Amino acid sequence: MVLRLDEIVARFGGEMVGPGDTVISRVDTLQHAGPGALSFLANSKYRSQLSTTRAGAVIMAPPMIDGPAAAILTPQPYLYYARVAQWLNPAPRPEPGIHASAVVEGSVAASASIGPNVWIGRAAAIAEDVVIAANCSIGTGVEIGAGSCLAANVAIYAGCRLGMRCVVHSGAVLGADGFGFARDGEGAWVKIPQVGRVLIGDDVEIGAGTTIDRGALGDTVIGDGVKLDNQIQVGHNVRIGAHTALAGCVGIAGSAVLGARCTVGGGAVILGHLHIADDVNIAAGTLVAKSIHGAGTYSGAVPFLEHAGWLRNFSRLRHLDAMADRIRVLEQRLAELEKKS
Amino acid sequence: MVLRLDEIVARFGGEMVGPGDTVISRVDTLQHAGPGALSFLANSKYRSQLSTTRAGAVIMAPPMIDGPAAAILTPQPYLYYARVAQWLNPAPRPEPGIHASAVVEGSVAASASIGPNVWIGRAAAIAEDVVIAANCSIGTGVEIGAGSCLAANVAIYAGCRLGMRCVVHSGAVLGADGFGFARDGEGAWVKIPQVGRVLIGDDVEIGAGTTIDRGALGDTVIGDGVKLDNQIQVGHNVRIGAHTALAGCVGIAGSAVLGARCTVGGGAVILGHLHIADDVNIAAGTLVAKSIHGAGTYSGAVPFLEHAGWLRNFSRLRHLDAMADRIRVLEQRLAELEKKS
Amino acid sequence: MVLRLDEIVARFGGEMVGPGDTVISRVDTLQHAGPGALSFLANSKYRSQLSTTRAGAVIMAPPMIDGPAAAILTPQPYLYYARVAQWLNPAPRPEPGIHASAVVEGSVAASASIGPNVWIGRAAAIAEDVVIAANCSIGTGVEIGAGSCLAANVAIYAGCRLGMRCVVHSGAVLGADGFGFARDGEGAWVKIPQVGRVLIGDDVEIGAGTTIDRGALGDTVIGDGVKLDNQIQVGHNVRIGAHTALAGCVGIAGSAVLGARCTVGGGAVILGHLHIADDVNIAAGTLVAKSIHGAGTYSGAVPFLEHAGWLRNFSRLRHLDAMADRIRVLEQRLAELEKKS
Repeated sequence: MVLRLDEIVARFGGEMVGPGDTVISRVDTLQHAGPGALSFLANSKYRSQLSTTRAGAVIMAPPMIDGPAAAILTPQPYLYYARVAQWLNPAPRPEPGIHASAVVEGSVAASASIGPNVWIGRAAAIAEDVVIAANCSIGTGVEIGAGSCLAANVAIYAGCRLGMRCVVHSGAVLGADGFGFARDGEGAWVKIPQVGRVLIGDDVEIGAGTTIDRGALGDTVIGDGVKLDNQIQVGHNVRIGAHTALAGCVGIAGSAVLGARCTVGGGAVILGHLHIADDVNIAAGTLVAKSIHGAGTYSGAVPFLEHAGWLRNFSRLRHLDAMADRIRVLEQRLAELEKKS
Repeated sequence: MVLRLDEIVARFGGEMVGPGDTVISRVDTLQHAGPGALSFLANSKYRSQLSTTRAGAVIMAPPMIDGPAAAILTPQPYLYYARVAQWLNPAPRPEPGIHASAVVEGSVAASASIGPNVWIGRAAAIAEDVVIAANCSIGTGVEIGAGSCLAANVAIYAGCRLGMRCVVHSGAVLGADGFGFARDGEGAWVKIPQVGRVLIGDDVEIGAGTTIDRGALGDTVIGDGVKLDNQIQVGHNVRIGAHTALAGCVGIAGSAVLGARCTVGGGAVILGHLHIADDVNIAAGTLVAKSIHGAGTYSGAVPFLEHAGWLRNFSRLRHLDAMADRIRVLEQRLAELEKKS
Repeated sequence: MVLRLDEIVARFGGEMVGPGDTVISRVDTLQHAGPGALSFLANSKYRSQLSTTRAGAVIMAPPMIDGPAAAILTPQPYLYYARVAQWLNPAPRPEPGIHASAVVEGSVAASASIGPNVWIGRAAAIAEDVVIAANCSIGTGVEIGAGSCLAANVAIYAGCRLGMRCVVHSGAVLGADGFGFARDGEGAWVKIPQVGRVLIGDDVEIGAGTTIDRGALGDTVIGDGVKLDNQIQVGHNVRIGAHTALAGCVGIAGSAVLGARCTVGGGAVILGHLHIADDVNIAAGTLVAKSIHGAGTYSGAVPFLEHAGWLRNFSRLRHLDAMADRIRVLEQRLAELEKKS
């Protein structure tokens, strides 16, 4: 696809600086862009690259910074870039139809595309424009909303529902049993049947290898517009509010409730049965062990050190309480002396 | 399935309070239960819901708490609930037989059910009543014991063995090579062949996306009744004792040995070659860097804070050793002054 | 395969001690080896086992330690063992050819082996001696170099490239979309198309369930000889230098650059856009939140404690800053007193 700069501005707005007939055929970084590429400045760290970039045009926040041959000024350059990039790079869609090797026991809309060796169970309902790539397994009664795309090797258990325009990446597993067991008198575990479902809203993206367990009683619910990165674990009966985004390797234990528009950094863990308010940001590597009732940023990761410094400092953690006691005793003894002096 | 309360008590014991002809057709939470539902009180946090629940009957520990129309009194309400829930929700079993699209080179018992597009390698032995769902890959010589169920898209490498009544969830991988390499003089890695197997006992449950590596020399061994949640990594030659339960995202490095009846919280990591005694409980997010020789609870997670408080406090971790030194110096100087005064 | 000790030394070097006609048919640990087994001493912790081992011969560093019937002396016993073990345990290779159930739209070399229910997309190129096991999905235009082996249930997205002699374990996902979204004014996320690829060098091993995302703009690049254990997450545009090895459950956020010959311990997390120098070792469980410019070992994991001790000590972390303040005040007050006395 080849566009002119003025076509882009006509479609997405912003203020054009420079020749409107600049030809744009792709997006690229300031560093790597060539004459036919549109680039963007979204992080001031890269500002110095404006003077050397060979990009045909650069999206940036006003005021215009000199350097590039042309520019689009807009208050949210990264968002603008996302929209142009989507226009220039439409997701490739395979031909509609059911591959001869697929085993389809449910219903599939005519415009859907079902890839090789896919299995779709009884009473499953696959809506218009859905794409299901090779080797996916779609359980009995699963419903997948219009326009959703499943990459290869996804597994969805019986009874789960996805909304419209969802993207599910390879290796994701939706609807496996939650981890629910009662201990008997000898320490053995008796399984609690997991009879709920996974209900996923519209415009949700689910990363590669991410697992979302079905509810024990009641459902696990993922709100509209939620974005889950790779290898996230979502326990049974978790509820995630709309437009919340979780980075890779996050774990959410059973029955936790996350609000809307939260962000959770990579590798963070949220324990079970907690409530996290709307608009909470949790830093990477934080273990959240109690509920968070107000919007804001919360952190719990520890700094790293060169090994010798780490040995010297972190071994003190075992003695923090004793250190606190020694400080208190010092304060008392010093107060005594001060009284005397 | 519809049961009467007196039928339930006749089968599972406990003391019945209220009308024995109360009809029960499902289980549900105190909050959501309606007249035909059996509920339970296992966590005192939910005790106040007894006065408002519409459940037909509630399982609780004696003495009876007023509120519900009927009750079953038993010392372990959650365990009792698990057993009734299992009775009311038998796991659905697909028809026996081998789907026409499956590729079966090994032996499969007549009562087993092999789903679409499954591959079962040479010399594999699938016992009675086993269920293997769509797109599973079962390597050469694998043995799967009677009544075990594999969800869709499970991969088991050559030579591994599962016991009876195991459950393996989608995306799990059993028997991949352990991570064993020797470094040569230039820093490159030379692979150590991983010639052991994975041996899994009876009544083991393995969560979605969980990976258990085969032994390097000798086997990786998972004891009877072990329960592994999702996305757990078990390294080569690990041994896990009977009835130990690991929550999601736990990592166990190579050659670690865990005792029986242990519990490990989500995201905890156990380093390699360690020994963990029986009946050890490890809190979520703990990194276990040395062996644990006695039963008990062990923790290592750090608290999280609102971001500004975290910045102020956690940056001090780099200076803990210096703080300890300053305390010691203060003590010496103060002792000097005290002597003088 | 049965070898004589002198054949092994003729091939791999080292100094032979004892009878050269000692017959070796397998490798095993000092503890479990029998007369036909070759063992090794690579960790001084196991030295006492030399006096009791029944191994036919033991590889060890000079000088010879008495005990075993025969020995091979070499400065790097573990590396030597790796090479002998590889010779004794050649990886089994299935017959060349394409299984009748596979769906192959790309090109496959005659000596390659394509397993049951595999899908290979259009314009994909599978080189000589490649093995692709059951239920793998290989996207459009993927290139896989000679001698690489994919275990069952691997998914590779369109356009990715693997070098020669790579090993990819089950459940691995290469080339899923990176996690890139721009936020709009209402808090909703607009997807950034991920148009880069994953480029993987020669002799790379990728563990079970590991995910490597494609680049957003530009590619994600894994260098020659890199070894990735299970359940590692590699974000978009990450670059990993040659011969770097990552243990299980590591997470590398987008655009991080790791040098050559690094090692990263299990569960460590490296945040996005950081640079890690060559020859850096990062301890298990460390969260790396800033770039590392020099070779060395870096740690950030916290110690674990028996629960009561943990409660006492770790709760102080919330008050570290106050403790530091109290120390400073004590120092001032004490200095005042000292002046007076």
